[in-house]
Amino acid sequence: MKKIYQLTLIASFLLIACGEKDTNTSQKAEMSEKVIIDLSHSYSEETVYWVTAKEFDLDTVFMGKTDKGFFYAANNFSTAEHGGTHIDAPIHFAEKGQSVDEIPLEKLMGAAIKIDVSANALPNPDYLITVDDLKAWEKEHSKIPDGSIVLLQTGFAKYYPNKVKYMGTDERGDVAIEKLHFPGLSPEAAEWLVQQRNINAIGIDTPSIDYGQSTYFKSHVILLEKNIPAFENLTNLDQLPNSGFEIIALPMKIKGGSGAPLRIVAILTK
Amino acid sequence: MKKIYQLTLIASFLLIACGEKDTNTSQKAEMSEKVIIDLSHSYSEETVYWVTAKEFDLDTVFMGKTDKGFFYAANNFSTAEHGGTHIDAPIHFAEKGQSVDEIPLEKLMGAAIKIDVSANALPNPDYLITVDDLKAWEKEHSKIPDGSIVLLQTGFAKYYPNKVKYMGTDERGDVAIEKLHFPGLSPEAAEWLVQQRNINAIGIDTPSIDYGQSTYFKSHVILLEKNIPAFENLTNLDQLPNSGFEIIALPMKIKGGSGAPLRIVAILTK
Ligand SMILES: [Zn+2]
Ligand SMILES: [Zn+2]
Repeated sequence: MKKIYQLTLIASFLLIACGEKDTNTSQKAEMSEKVIIDLSHSYSEETVYWVTAKEFDLDTVFMGKTDKGFFYAANNFSTAEHGGTHIDAPIHFAEKGQSVDEIPLEKLMGAAIKIDVSANALPNPDYLITVDDLKAWEKEHSKIPDGSIVLLQTGFAKYYPNKVKYMGTDERGDVAIEKLHFPGLSPEAAEWLVQQRNINAIGIDTPSIDYGQSTYFKSHVILLEKNIPAFENLTNLDQLPNSGFEIIALPMKIKGGSGAPLRIVAILTK
Repeated sequence: MKKIYQLTLIASFLLIACGEKDTNTSQKAEMSEKVIIDLSHSYSEETVYWVTAKEFDLDTVFMGKTDKGFFYAANNFSTAEHGGTHIDAPIHFAEKGQSVDEIPLEKLMGAAIKIDVSANALPNPDYLITVDDLKAWEKEHSKIPDGSIVLLQTGFAKYYPNKVKYMGTDERGDVAIEKLHFPGLSPEAAEWLVQQRNINAIGIDTPSIDYGQSTYFKSHVILLEKNIPAFENLTNLDQLPNSGFEIIALPMKIKGGSGAPLRIVAILTK
């Protein structure tokens, strides 16, 4: 509980800030050019869950004037760990993987890149992101830097929370599973990331890192067995550049949790 | 949902980083001197809740090998918004205050100070932090900087999750309310912070910003009416310096929530 983590990835802050200092921009001006972008959907009765998962339920305990005269509001809530903008902890699909409270914070905070595959994915809800998609990003930019948080933009966030458009069905239960259609990361690309590159975490703007038609969830297994957590149901990725920004992703600290609601933000320099 | 917030308070990153650059320390060395400290308790059956609040309940949906051969684990959970390490959104005690999803992220991320009152508070579970405590910090350091996140260290986190020691009772329900004993911020000091200083947020290592014997929760009302959110049940404050560090506090984004589970970390330079 008192473990201290090394923070190795606030690097771009330093680089950008010190770089700008050379151009004689004032400290104040540098600071005001940083913006925070919220990549999290909010939790409500509209929140999108897996078709078999318990949905979000907010229960008002009290709202109004108390008999002592002051205003007071409080709620209870219940939810599946996996729904809305959330994190998959390694133990979700890896028996010996970390639970959500065990994920080192350094994996969840640091330099990030965005790979925009929306041109391929938006016309095809069964699109599988390929190794070539990843290599195309590298050709245009650089090798995916060690320790990166990799965000995959399919463009599907624009359909959220319309379940038919976002995930192929608004039906619920086991019968709805085969009706799921949304893009995801191919197992081959997951394998390539794990074997050929060294990333800290991955995220996507769909309900799952595996595509809707997946039955064996192989991309989950490949990534989570290497303790690479996955962020799902992200939004606002269209507001991010392809590189040169930071992610801060802080999940609810559920002891032994296989996942958790996640508040995730990007910090970038405009 | 697509609102972009100005980030004005990652200032100390820049100052520290650029300052160190002048001494010819390598970038790599600078980076490795940043540490992340988790100020959050985890959620479990031990999590401390208000004596009348619904406690944390984790329900295993599945854990083991599926009929397809892969391992899978998933849980549901239910909880009060206010319990464990959490945030009080302004609407908790202020009818027109922001709900937790409406709190600007810039208020939750930035430069912080710590005021250690444990010498007074540890011997006295009914201790009320005074204006003089705040002024004593200022005398030793500086005026509390505009936009600060102010953390109050009573030392009580060391008793967590022993409810008798931490909050005076392990009884539950209305009858236990009068048995609550733990330190808090006096309404006079809350008023002084609101009127004389300009802070972004406040936090404490006890169950509530008002002390255990409070009946009107005046410090809550004073702070929350000014849209100053409060972080409660913090831990590891003993690992922080009195100033010169950053806080990142990201609550679960509950639409209309009066509060939420909070993951809060400090970033400092060793
Ligand atoms: Zn998931
Ligand atoms: Zn509270």
